[in-house]
Amino acid sequence: MLSELKEKVYKANIELVKHGLVIFTWGNVSGIDRARGLVVIKPSGVSYDEMKPDDMVVVDLADGHVVEGNLRPSSDTPTHLAIYRAFPEVGGVVHTHSTYATAWAQAGMDIPNIGTTHADYFHDAVPCTADMTAQEVEGDYELETGNVIVKRFAGLNPVHTPGVLVKNHGPFTWGKDPHEAVHNAVVLEQVAKMAYIAYGINPSLTMNPLLIEKHFNRKHGPNAYYGQTKK
Amino acid sequence: MLSELKEKVYKANIELVKHGLVIFTWGNVSGIDRARGLVVIKPSGVSYDEMKPDDMVVVDLADGHVVEGNLRPSSDTPTHLAIYRAFPEVGGVVHTHSTYATAWAQAGMDIPNIGTTHADYFHDAVPCTADMTAQEVEGDYELETGNVIVKRFAGLNPVHTPGVLVKNHGPFTWGKDPHEAVHNAVVLEQVAKMAYIAYGINPSLTMNPLLIEKHFNRKHGPNAYYGQTKK
Amino acid sequence: MLSELKEKVYKANIELVKHGLVIFTWGNVSGIDRARGLVVIKPSGVSYDEMKPDDMVVVDLADGHVVEGNLRPSSDTPTHLAIYRAFPEVGGVVHTHSTYATAWAQAGMDIPNIGTTHADYFHDAVPCTADMTAQEVEGDYELETGNVIVKRFAGLNPVHTPGVLVKNHGPFTWGKDPHEAVHNAVVLEQVAKMAYIAYGINPSLTMNPLLIEKHFNRKHGPNAYYGQTKK
Amino acid sequence: MLSELKEKVYKANIELVKHGLVIFTWGNVSGIDRARGLVVIKPSGVSYDEMKPDDMVVVDLADGHVVEGNLRPSSDTPTHLAIYRAFPEVGGVVHTHSTYATAWAQAGMDIPNIGTTHADYFHDAVPCTADMTAQEVEGDYELETGNVIVKRFAGLNPVHTPGVLVKNHGPFTWGKDPHEAVHNAVVLEQVAKMAYIAYGINPSLTMNPLLIEKHFNRKHGPNAYYGQTKK
Repeated sequence: MLSELKEKVYKANIELVKHGLVIFTWGNVSGIDRARGLVVIKPSGVSYDEMKPDDMVVVDLADGHVVEGNLRPSSDTPTHLAIYRAFPEVGGVVHTHSTYATAWAQAGMDIPNIGTTHADYFHDAVPCTADMTAQEVEGDYELETGNVIVKRFAGLNPVHTPGVLVKNHGPFTWGKDPHEAVHNAVVLEQVAKMAYIAYGINPSLTMNPLLIEKHFNRKHGPNAYYGQTKK
Repeated sequence: MLSELKEKVYKANIELVKHGLVIFTWGNVSGIDRARGLVVIKPSGVSYDEMKPDDMVVVDLADGHVVEGNLRPSSDTPTHLAIYRAFPEVGGVVHTHSTYATAWAQAGMDIPNIGTTHADYFHDAVPCTADMTAQEVEGDYELETGNVIVKRFAGLNPVHTPGVLVKNHGPFTWGKDPHEAVHNAVVLEQVAKMAYIAYGINPSLTMNPLLIEKHFNRKHGPNAYYGQTKK
Repeated sequence: MLSELKEKVYKANIELVKHGLVIFTWGNVSGIDRARGLVVIKPSGVSYDEMKPDDMVVVDLADGHVVEGNLRPSSDTPTHLAIYRAFPEVGGVVHTHSTYATAWAQAGMDIPNIGTTHADYFHDAVPCTADMTAQEVEGDYELETGNVIVKRFAGLNPVHTPGVLVKNHGPFTWGKDPHEAVHNAVVLEQVAKMAYIAYGINPSLTMNPLLIEKHFNRKHGPNAYYGQTKK
Repeated sequence: MLSELKEKVYKANIELVKHGLVIFTWGNVSGIDRARGLVVIKPSGVSYDEMKPDDMVVVDLADGHVVEGNLRPSSDTPTHLAIYRAFPEVGGVVHTHSTYATAWAQAGMDIPNIGTTHADYFHDAVPCTADMTAQEVEGDYELETGNVIVKRFAGLNPVHTPGVLVKNHGPFTWGKDPHEAVHNAVVLEQVAKMAYIAYGINPSLTMNPLLIEKHFNRKHGPNAYYGQTKK
C-alpha cells in the first residue's frame, strides 16, 4: 500500500541525515496522498541506520489512526496532520532539531529576512510561535503544537514561507513533496546560521526590501527565470 | 573476566570518537558490574586507534585497586568510582572535553534548560560544580572531583539529570549502561552548543516550564509514549 | 568549441563543492576567452552531481547572448559579464553564498584587513557594495548588480583585492583564471570567518599597517619570494 | 641525508592537514638534528597532495643556507631557526593559520589559561607578541618575527608553554620533536576555540589557579601520573 510514497518518505528521512540535520532519531519526515486522505510518516524512535521503506507508517489524515504498519508512528504525527489539514498545498512535512534553527526557536525569535538566500526561499521572516498554554501542553500536546503553528500563519502564506519555529522547541518545514520539505529544512538551517553570524557582526543591520521581492519572484513569481524547468 | 562488559566499554569509547567528542586521548568511558562490585574502564593515555577490548582495566568499586589488566587505568578512575558509589542507578560513566560543554564548564555556569531537546534528556539545568578548595585539589584530587560532583547533586535526581560540568574542567555524563552514558554525552554537547547560540541571539530569552514537564515525562515518565519499546 | 575552457570551468565548479562553499546549486563559476570575447559559465539551477563539462554554456562577452549550449546560463551571468568588461585582467569569476562571507554581506559591512592571512591575498578591506536603488533592482537586476560592484571599485585595484560582498546578498571573487577565482573564494570565506571570531574576542582590535604591505608584497609585489615559481 | 628526519617532518606536515589545521599551503613543520646543526623543513608553497619526503629541504641552523634540496625552503624558515637557536629543548616547530588561534592573534590578545585542557599542555596563557616595528618588518622580516617571539618569552619557560601567537598573524607551536609540535598545534586550536566560546558565555569568568598547577604537574611534573609511559 502506497509503496511509492513510502519509498519517497524513507529517502527523505535519509536525506535529513546526509545533510547533517539530525542526530540519533531527532527528526521525522512525512508525505501525503491527498486523493486517499492518507499520510505516510517515519516510525517513532527508530534509528535511521536500521530503518527500511516498509517501516514507514500509514495514518489517516482525518483522525491519525494507524491504517498500516507494525510500528508506532512518530510521536509528532498529530503536528504533521494539523499542518496538512490547514495548508492544502503542502505535500510533505519535516521536523528537526537542527542546531541553528533550534537555537532561534529557543531564543523565541522570528528569523528576519536579511538576505537574498532567505528571500530565494522564504518571502517573510521565518515566524516563531507563541508560548503554549497549560491547556495546550497538558491536553493533546502534539495536536496543539500543530494548532499554534497554524494560528501563527494567520495572514501569512504557507507556500511563500514554508517553515516555522516552534518556540523553545525547533523547526518544522514543508513543501510540495517530502523531498522539497527536506530541501527547505536544509535552507532554513543555513539561513538561521547566517542570520546568527550577521547579527553578531552588526546588530543594527538593515535589509533592502526591494531585494526580497526581486529574489522571491525570480524563483517563485509568475515570471520566474531561475533554473531550467521553471516557466 | 568480564569480557562482555569489556567489549561494551571498549565500544562505547570508540563511539565517543565517532561522535566527534574526543581528540587524542581526551575522554574515557567506564561500565560497572554491580553484582561483583567491579568497574571496567579505559586505560590511561592510550590512543583510540590502538586500543583493544582486552586493554580495558578492571578495578574494585570500593577502593579502586586494579583487579585485572596490564595497563594503568584512566587517571580519572577515582571520579568514576565516586559517581558509581553515590548514584546506585548508574551503570556507565563518561568523561570528555567536548567543545561546547567544556566551554560552559570554563565559563563556570549551569546550562539552563531552555528547550525541548534539553528537556527530552535532562529535567533540570545541567549543573556546574563549585570551585575546588586547596585541600581538595592537593589531596586525592580525582576522588575529590567525584565528591564535588556528588555534593552538587544534593537535592537533584542524577537519573533525571544524567550529567554535570566540573568547573574549569569539563563534563561527566552517565546512564544505565556505557552506551547510554555516551548517548547522554552527545546530547549534552549538542544542548550546550544550542544554548550558547540561543543566548547569543537573545540574552533575555525565557523557557516555558510547562514544556519541561511535558517533554521529560513524554520520554521518561510513567506514561512515556516516545519510541517503540518504552512502556 | 572552447572544450578546454569548458573543462576548466566545470572543474572549478566542482572544486567549489569540495571546499564546502556551496550547497545545492548556490554557486557558479565562469571563465573567459578574451581573444574570442566569449565567456563559459555554469548552467542555471543544475545540480553539481549531474553536471558535465559539456553542460557549460558559452555566451558572448558583449551582450550575453548564448552562443553555444542547450541549457540556460546561470541567472547571474550578466553580473559576471559586467565584471569581465570592467576588469580586463580578470580571467575567472566565482559567486557563492558561502556562510561567513554571506553573513558579512548581510551585515552590510566591509571585511577589514586585520591579519596576514587577509593581506596575503587582499590588499584592502573586502568591500561591501551600496544599497541598490529601485531602478537598479527593478531594471536589469543582474547587470546592475555587476554595475554596483564596478562602481564600488572606484579607486580600488581589482587585481589587488580580488573579491567583493554584494550587500544583503553574498560574495563574488575573481582571479586570472577560474581555478584562482575559486581559490580566492575559499580564502575569502576563511578570512570572513576569522574576522568574525577576532572581533568577537576583541571589538577594538587594531591592525599593524606595516604587515599589510609586507605580506601583500611578499606574495604579489615585484620582489615576491613566496612559493617556488613566483619571481 | 637525514632521511629519517625528513620522513618525520613530512609525516608531521601531513598530520597538520588531517587535523584540519591548514588549507592550501598555509602551514609548515620543521625538525632539527641538534648534533649536526641542521634543520629539515617543508618547501615553500608546495601543495600537501604533491609533496614527498624527499622534497623536504635541509638548511643550516646557524645561517639558514640550504644544505640539500632542490626546492626553496618555507619562507618562514628564519622564524623557525630563531626559535631553535633560542630554545635548546625544542626539536620540532609548527606554523599554521588555524582558525581560532589565528583569530586570537588577530585580536592581539593572549589566550588566558581558563581550563584544565589548557593547563594539561600550557602552564601559562598562550602569549601574543608585541606589534612589530617598521625596522623589524622592513628588515629581515621572518627572522625578526622569530626575534619578537623570543623576546616575548622573557621570563616564560618555552617548554612549559610550547606555543605563541604572532600578533595579527597566527600561531607557532613547538615540542620535543615534529610530531609533538603538531600535537601542540592541535591542542592550541582547540583551547583557542573553547576560550572564545567560554568568554562568549561569561565575559567575567574566573579560573581556579590551583587547577593549573595540579593539571600541569599531573602530566609534566616530576611526579606525573598520566598515561602509561611517563614516570
